[in-house]
Amino acid sequence: MSDPVFSHLDAEGTARMVDVGAKPVQRRVAVAEGFVEAAASTLAALRAQALPKGDVLTVARVAAIQAAKRTDSLIPLCHSLPLDAVDIDFSVEAERVAIRATVSTSSKTGVEMEALMAVSVAALTLYDMCKAIDKTMVLSGIRVVSKTKQ
Amino acid sequence: MSDPVFSHLDAEGTARMVDVGAKPVQRRVAVAEGFVEAAASTLAALRAQALPKGDVLTVARVAAIQAAKRTDSLIPLCHSLPLDAVDIDFSVEAERVAIRATVSTSSKTGVEMEALMAVSVAALTLYDMCKAIDKTMVLSGIRVVSKTKQ
Amino acid sequence: MSDPVFSHLDAEGTARMVDVGAKPVQRRVAVAEGFVEAAASTLAALRAQALPKGDVLTVARVAAIQAAKRTDSLIPLCHSLPLDAVDIDFSVEAERVAIRATVSTSSKTGVEMEALMAVSVAALTLYDMCKAIDKTMVLSGIRVVSKTKQ
Amino acid sequence: MSDPVFSHLDAEGTARMVDVGAKPVQRRVAVAEGFVEAAASTLAALRAQALPKGDVLTVARVAAIQAAKRTDSLIPLCHSLPLDAVDIDFSVEAERVAIRATVSTSSKTGVEMEALMAVSVAALTLYDMCKAIDKTMVLSGIRVVSKTKQ
Amino acid sequence: MSDPVFSHLDAEGTARMVDVGAKPVQRRVAVAEGFVEAAASTLAALRAQALPKGDVLTVARVAAIQAAKRTDSLIPLCHSLPLDAVDIDFSVEAERVAIRATVSTSSKTGVEMEALMAVSVAALTLYDMCKAIDKTMVLSGIRVVSKTKQ
Amino acid sequence: MSDPVFSHLDAEGTARMVDVGAKPVQRRVAVAEGFVEAAASTLAALRAQALPKGDVLTVARVAAIQAAKRTDSLIPLCHSLPLDAVDIDFSVEAERVAIRATVSTSSKTGVEMEALMAVSVAALTLYDMCKAIDKTMVLSGIRVVSKTKQ
Repeated sequence: MSDPVFSHLDAEGTARMVDVGAKPVQRRVAVAEGFVEAAASTLAALRAQALPKGDVLTVARVAAIQAAKRTDSLIPLCHSLPLDAVDIDFSVEAERVAIRATVSTSSKTGVEMEALMAVSVAALTLYDMCKAIDKTMVLSGIRVVSKTKQ
Repeated sequence: MSDPVFSHLDAEGTARMVDVGAKPVQRRVAVAEGFVEAAASTLAALRAQALPKGDVLTVARVAAIQAAKRTDSLIPLCHSLPLDAVDIDFSVEAERVAIRATVSTSSKTGVEMEALMAVSVAALTLYDMCKAIDKTMVLSGIRVVSKTKQ
Repeated sequence: MSDPVFSHLDAEGTARMVDVGAKPVQRRVAVAEGFVEAAASTLAALRAQALPKGDVLTVARVAAIQAAKRTDSLIPLCHSLPLDAVDIDFSVEAERVAIRATVSTSSKTGVEMEALMAVSVAALTLYDMCKAIDKTMVLSGIRVVSKTKQ
Repeated sequence: MSDPVFSHLDAEGTARMVDVGAKPVQRRVAVAEGFVEAAASTLAALRAQALPKGDVLTVARVAAIQAAKRTDSLIPLCHSLPLDAVDIDFSVEAERVAIRATVSTSSKTGVEMEALMAVSVAALTLYDMCKAIDKTMVLSGIRVVSKTKQ
Repeated sequence: MSDPVFSHLDAEGTARMVDVGAKPVQRRVAVAEGFVEAAASTLAALRAQALPKGDVLTVARVAAIQAAKRTDSLIPLCHSLPLDAVDIDFSVEAERVAIRATVSTSSKTGVEMEALMAVSVAALTLYDMCKAIDKTMVLSGIRVVSKTKQ
Repeated sequence: MSDPVFSHLDAEGTARMVDVGAKPVQRRVAVAEGFVEAAASTLAALRAQALPKGDVLTVARVAAIQAAKRTDSLIPLCHSLPLDAVDIDFSVEAERVAIRATVSTSSKTGVEMEALMAVSVAALTLYDMCKAIDKTMVLSGIRVVSKTKQ
């Protein structure tokens, strides 16, 4: 790979929003995932107190949905996109909580940043609610799983 | 650890903001770190085009500072805190970009969520600027390094 | 009515944004109304000082328009919609101030929440400006009057 | 009451923020309440699906807490206040959902607008989640229950 | 002047928020002014339709107050400050509208940016409301008039 | 000019958002410019420390792009528009910094307010970063340079 180009920099290396004016409106879906690694006792508490549909996960879900809708105001060079839908799934696993966000839009550019933002804020909200009982948590593996358009 | 308690849940398991009314105003500092794992070519491009004080890292730094100031509107149960200072450091390492945020306040509760938010949004902004050239990036190791008060 | 379904809950009872991706873009208009019940002296003061186009009602009108545009960030599962127009009417009646909001859009879903938000924030802003002279005010009768699409 | 004065208007009737610079910082608590009147079937569905700590009420609670923290950006002449705590209680009654918000601060002015905002946005969020099954809902009785300082 | 220093840059030229942690809380007041130069017919229309307390100036006043409260989210390296008061005065002069903003706080740093932001957004809002009848308007002379602390 | 009409006022002089529902979606571009007049030493410092792509101008550029995207929440009667692109150019001249913003959209109304907002916030951000070394700066000449549609 000899000549990588940052799409957000112009020929002089200056930051800019990429012009999406000529791109077609398409249905676009992005899925992102991420994890909150936590102590076994924290995960046990999450399973016991927070399930089946308890407040802890729902607070994180709401925070994630709201953050997805505000991605354009948090990531400077992102476009403002109307989101068709946002789904947030949690799975309390043996050593971590897994978070998966599915975001869809009908617009000129994709929504992977919105999906990543949703996962990150869900993880941070879980962190906030568990931090009094667990100082060892780490957010890890936040990445895009898939990105499609029709 | 027999009886972990989620501080953001009351006796009935309902989400609430913890009452900080009786806590003293103190100088509080939190440091968080995190990483963007990227392809070698991406890291080389960042070193070549973005240094010494280029737009890519500065855009991420500004986004991080602004996000730190808005943590209370992103994490539902966080308090609104006036931040005394926010510093964001980047280090382009062999296999990743390291991000470190130092946040300080003079108030009734700590700022580790603000530091974690700054690191996360810095990482997401880097991701956004590099995603056209690298589909393999992962955010990892986002955690609190230290938290002190005087 | 044997089996009501919350459209914002999936089969497992989990909150989500309803997917509007397959819905057509249509002109949609919603009208909402609401009231601020107040003491006779407050209403007299509003008539005397605030009319014909005085600051009190205009401040409430501006607050209502701005709130309508931000409904998606206040109501967690609402979609972000571009509003075509927002109109706010006030009528100082015998025992209350009547507020009516008309909101229109050209998009995939309706704007009754935007109209209700506009009425609510107009009422709250009036409350704020009159609260020093009247501790008895009550917001009442906030509801959707009509909702149409073409 | 012969000469009521709008505290937010100066001698010429112009809107302004009241100067709170000379007021002492005090612990201040405000309680507000309000109601969502709904069909019996809606209330039954809320009881069945949403309890004990289901998503519907939690989504409304989170929305209310976040709105309380943003009152200064929604009500034009309100001051920005750091909130010590926000509690939101719901009670599904025979003909309505009752909402009660308790907001506290340590600052120069009171938080009744924050409590009213929390109740209003909680009610609007419930409305949003139930509107597909009930077109008859009305928000009513939104008022300040108590306001104290120490 | 041999060695000017940008306070928002550290020794390596990197942007940062200045640490105000060690500064005393003081009453601070800043006054800023600015002008919208407009056609005579525009100014005549403003005088005729907008006075004495008409909607045009009030809309601009509300926008200015709200923008002053949000300065920290618009100017990246500004601190979040609780404002004690904001006053906005307009004077329709022969060739322009004069705008003056007075902003006060009790905090660790000054509010000249808040006063400048208020003037700028008031001017932009006037521009927005007059732009259909006047394509020649110019914003000019936006500056700090005074800055004091006690 | 016998009968100027404020498009944002209805027949009774009441503020409202203009209804854009019947207007066609078109590609629209607006260019605005403005200046920060500063002391020679400030301009020399900007040239020396901030160039070629230094933090000072980049911080102002990011602030301008983010403000352009938020114009609808700052200017009360502006519509929410999805921006296709935002470009911000700076030129450090003999007696001032020149700022030029080019904003484009594909929507029902133009973006001159977004371009003016971008210029204004870029200028204010420069002011903020230079104010410790220069108390004489003035923002001037903020105006629309061109406005086109296709």
